[in-house]
Amino acid sequence: MKVLGAKTGDRLKVGVINGHLGHGTVVSVERKSPFRVELALKLVSAQVVEPPIDLLLALPRPIMLKRIFSQVTTLGIGTFYLIHARRVEKSFWNSSLLQEEQYRFQLVQGLEQAVATRLPRVQFHQRFKPFVEDILPGIRANYSHLLLAHPGGRNTLVQTVKTGPGRILLAVGPEGGWVEYERQKLKEQGFQTISMGERILKVDTAVIALHSQISLVLQMRGDRG
Amino acid sequence: MKVLGAKTGDRLKVGVINGHLGHGTVVSVERKSPFRVELALKLVSAQVVEPPIDLLLALPRPIMLKRIFSQVTTLGIGTFYLIHARRVEKSFWNSSLLQEEQYRFQLVQGLEQAVATRLPRVQFHQRFKPFVEDILPGIRANYSHLLLAHPGGRNTLVQTVKTGPGRILLAVGPEGGWVEYERQKLKEQGFQTISMGERILKVDTAVIALHSQISLVLQMRGDRG
Repeated sequence: MKVLGAKTGDRLKVGVINGHLGHGTVVSVERKSPFRVELALKLVSAQVVEPPIDLLLALPRPIMLKRIFSQVTTLGIGTFYLIHARRVEKSFWNSSLLQEEQYRFQLVQGLEQAVATRLPRVQFHQRFKPFVEDILPGIRANYSHLLLAHPGGRNTLVQTVKTGPGRILLAVGPEGGWVEYERQKLKEQGFQTISMGERILKVDTAVIALHSQISLVLQMRGDRG
Repeated sequence: MKVLGAKTGDRLKVGVINGHLGHGTVVSVERKSPFRVELALKLVSAQVVEPPIDLLLALPRPIMLKRIFSQVTTLGIGTFYLIHARRVEKSFWNSSLLQEEQYRFQLVQGLEQAVATRLPRVQFHQRFKPFVEDILPGIRANYSHLLLAHPGGRNTLVQTVKTGPGRILLAVGPEGGWVEYERQKLKEQGFQTISMGERILKVDTAVIALHSQISLVLQMRGDRG
C-alpha cells in the first residue's frame, strides 16, 4: 500500500516463500489498522531450485553481515554457515541480527530484489574447532569443491573448478584473514586455496566478487557439459 | 596516529597517489595540533598500471554512489563516467558527493583498502544525448568491447568477450534499468548487450558482480593469449 500504492484491481508480482512465483490481484484493501490486503493468487512457476553455492563465513561486523545477508541472498545462496574465527570480535556474537526474526527480514528483502522465493538456510557455529572437526566431515560430501579464498593463493578459480557437477562451498575469512591454524584445519577437511588476485578486498566486496566469479565458472562448466 | 598507533621508528606501508608503493619509517611525530608525522620513505614498486575496465554508470543515489566509489576503486577501475538517464532522479545531481573534495576521499579509501595507488578518473555528464553522441564516439576506439548489462540479455559475458587485447567499457543503468531509447542509442555506439541471468540485482551489487566476472574473463583471455 505504501510502496506500490496498490489499490483494488491492481495486479502485483507475488512469491510464496519456498514456493511458487506468480501474480496476485488485489481483491480488497483495509486502510485502517489492522491493515489488510486480500489478494487472488495465480501462482505459475513451479521451480524452486537451490542455488549451487553455499557460504562459510567468519562472522563479520553486524552492519556488514546485514548487507551480506541481503546482497548474497539476491545473488542466490543455499546455506549461510556463520562461524567463529580468531580475528572475529567476540562482541559480534551478541548482535541482535543473529536472531531469526531480525536476519530473516534481510533475507526476504534479498529475495524480493531477486524475484526469487527460496529462503537460504542460516546456521551459526560459535566455536571454530567443533564446527570444522564434527560438522564439516558430515557435509563435505555434498560438494564437488570446497574453496578457500586467500589473497595471493596459487591457483585461480578457473584452474580449480574444472570438473562437475556438484555444489560449491566457499569459505571467506574475517577482516585480516584466517590465521594459519584455521587455514590448516580447513585444508585438512579438503578445502583448496584459490587466488583472489593482489588487491585486498573488504569482506562484503570479496563475497560478492567470489560468488559472481564462481557462478560464471559454473555456468561455463554447464555450457561445456 | 589514531588508527595504527604509529610511533617513532615504526615502519608503515606507504603509497604515493598515482605513484610508487613502499614503506615509510616514522622519523618524528607531533601530537599537538597541527598534527604532523615525518616519514623516511623507501618506495620500491614502479608499476602503476591502469586497470583494464572503465565504468559508464547512470548516476545512482548518493549513498549508493559513495559505496560504489570506494568498492569499485578497490576492485580497480580506470575511469568512472557518471551520466544522466531517464530513471535517474534529478535531485541526485545536487549531491555534495559530486564535488571532487568529497568523492576523492572515497576513492582514496578504496585505494588504501586495495593497497594500490592509481586514482581513478571521474567524469560527470549531466546530459545523456550529448554524452552518447559527442563524447562516446571519441573514446570508443580505446576499447575492445563496450558491454551493456541487461537482465535477460541473450549473450553471456564469456560468449561476448572472446578476442583481446583491449580495454572494456561496462555500462550499468539506473535502478529500473535504461529505457528503450537509451539502450538503442548505446547500441548504435557499439555496445553489446550481455545477460546478467534472471535475478534482478541492485546497482551496487550488479557493478561488483559484473566487474568481477569481466576481470575473470580477461584473466582467462590472458592465460590463453
